Amino acid sequence: MRRRTFLKNATSAGAGGVAAGIAAPALAQGRLEWRLVTTWPKNLPGLGTAPELLAQMIGKASDGRLTVRVFGSGELVPPFEALDAVATGTVEMGHGSPFYWKGRIPAVQFLTTFPFGLLADEQNAWYQHGGGLNLAGDIYRQMGCKFFPCGNTGPQMGGWFNREINAIGDFKGLKMRIPGLGGAVVSAAGGEVVTLPGAEIPSALESGALDAAEWVGPYNDLAFGLYKSARYYYYPGWHEPGSTLDCFINAAVWEKLPSDLQAIVEHACGAVNQMVLSEFNARNGSSLRILLDDHKVQLRRFPDTVLQELGKLSGEVLTDLGSKDPLSRSVLDSLLKFRAEQASWSALAEQSFLEARSLPYTFARPTGN
Amino acid sequence: MRRRTFLKNATSAGAGGVAAGIAAPALAQGRLEWRLVTTWPKNLPGLGTAPELLAQMIGKASDGRLTVRVFGSGELVPPFEALDAVATGTVEMGHGSPFYWKGRIPAVQFLTTFPFGLLADEQNAWYQHGGGLNLAGDIYRQMGCKFFPCGNTGPQMGGWFNREINAIGDFKGLKMRIPGLGGAVVSAAGGEVVTLPGAEIPSALESGALDAAEWVGPYNDLAFGLYKSARYYYYPGWHEPGSTLDCFINAAVWEKLPSDLQAIVEHACGAVNQMVLSEFNARNGSSLRILLDDHKVQLRRFPDTVLQELGKLSGEVLTDLGSKDPLSRSVLDSLLKFRAEQASWSALAEQSFLEARSLPYTFARPTGN
Repeated sequence: MRRRTFLKNATSAGAGGVAAGIAAPALAQGRLEWRLVTTWPKNLPGLGTAPELLAQMIGKASDGRLTVRVFGSGELVPPFEALDAVATGTVEMGHGSPFYWKGRIPAVQFLTTFPFGLLADEQNAWYQHGGGLNLAGDIYRQMGCKFFPCGNTGPQMGGWFNREINAIGDFKGLKMRIPGLGGAVVSAAGGEVVTLPGAEIPSALESGALDAAEWVGPYNDLAFGLYKSARYYYYPGWHEPGSTLDCFINAAVWEKLPSDLQAIVEHACGAVNQMVLSEFNARNGSSLRILLDDHKVQLRRFPDTVLQELGKLSGEVLTDLGSKDPLSRSVLDSLLKFRAEQASWSALAEQSFLEARSLPYTFARPTGN
Repeated sequence: MRRRTFLKNATSAGAGGVAAGIAAPALAQGRLEWRLVTTWPKNLPGLGTAPELLAQMIGKASDGRLTVRVFGSGELVPPFEALDAVATGTVEMGHGSPFYWKGRIPAVQFLTTFPFGLLADEQNAWYQHGGGLNLAGDIYRQMGCKFFPCGNTGPQMGGWFNREINAIGDFKGLKMRIPGLGGAVVSAAGGEVVTLPGAEIPSALESGALDAAEWVGPYNDLAFGLYKSARYYYYPGWHEPGSTLDCFINAAVWEKLPSDLQAIVEHACGAVNQMVLSEFNARNGSSLRILLDDHKVQLRRFPDTVLQELGKLSGEVLTDLGSKDPLSRSVLDSLLKFRAEQASWSALAEQSFLEARSLPYTFARPTGN
């Protein structure tokens, strides 16, 4: 019922539709001006970069025929209303991450990432060669939008902990801030999952209202100063191996866009998809060094026995969610089939190479080091 | 001396310069038609895809103002003359891989990949956030071209062997087809490196003229039928963890291109850079399954002791090459500095996640499996 009303709105709104209180964009001499709303504060490291890059690139490649103005979360609409605002035509375009829209269509949550799931490159390979773009396209179309993958965080960290995790039982009663599917798994392990806006994490860790909190990775966690409020920095990020960010465009607006401008938007999303991952990789590397060298952060690796239990619980959580509706099941089926093949290849390729590179041997060094 | 003559040619040739025997491109109503020459046979899996995709995308995003016609290796010029043909203005654009041009400027060979070097994502992060694009831009400018990274093979395999490798001494006298820096390392280990066109590999393996041969990875190796000619399929591909492909454009042609078309070309290269990697990941996964299940290929992992020795020898080969000219030294310095930071991060992130994912636990399965 809700979906039907919403689809009707999306279809009737059209380009530049005006919602109460938001001025219509200027349109001069066939030039289009789109507004893009994000779920991120403006210029949030890595995540906020994506829509800014996208807007610059579209403006440049279209020679100003299509300009995109970026609004941070809350500037036009609250962060989690970004997709609504685009679907109803209040604005033309948005940027966030698929799992934010799971209240609309539950299957969309699997399009970001899933516990013990796919790395960024594997996730991109699924989108482009494993049927992912078709499935995601159908889901976003049902939500009144055109979809493009538009950035990936790469692997995240396991979180900041004030208690050590030596056995799966240590999750019992653990008060942890961890959203999404990871949270469902921690919950299944007996943890107490706390929902809390990011800004309140540091004081909650300090007061003991939280025992642990997951944020992103070294780049964001350093900027946020989380090392001041927790003792141990755990890895690996079993729950979010490579989170896809989404670009969504009002379906009716997209259909009316000339095909060359469609291609310009699509290619910019494709390039940004990779550039965001590069930013995370580069900045996570340098930020990790600062966390370890300057702030003496204590790294901890989840023991294998704990990871095995988390893997098993993750499988149970996914199977359960897949049984709830046919669309979730078909998205999960596609992802799990692809995961099996990719896991065999990545174990021989990336994993085996990284293990070889980590062996002790004397290597070439930069001059002066 | 050679470089000076060549730069002069590059500068004086300009757009659509005509070489003997090759017709000039048609130019109608301000529309540009470029010819792209590649080092790959047309439609070679993965590698041949990149220039075809690029051409389609540029044509579409420019609404036909710039069309690119792709010629496979040998159609207009021999494969390893592709850069010459572009630099002198015989054609406008090319696609290959940086190390092919090391006869021109030795430092260019480090821009593809290097033994025990960077994975695809790390290499992209170096280009975009580690100073790589500036260094590469300078080198290609000296060769009369504009440069963009345009595709990555991902990690390759260690090669097809008819002899087992149990100790570094097993490389002594081993007749192996392995080009580039990997070949220099095998040579340092006492191997006899054989230069041979790809097409001659199968018969050379069968006759014993070769004991081993490196090609690419499961996707290409399956298509090429290499499993018929060798006993063991070794991993990891320590010598080529993520080979970058290059797009190069005549410098004078590039400078004259309107800035919106420059952006269209740049964004298409950025998107293709990621799409090629996705194709390799997806197809390597499915091809590996076929090699193992249908063709009963025997996988072998290089022992850690052998990998450590290869790592040490790789460091010596790189240090030696870096001492030969200042430009090689500065490219290597930049890569090695970035490698140190990335290796720490990737060990916690990708490596640790992949190890966790490989642990034995029951996971969710696709319906019907």
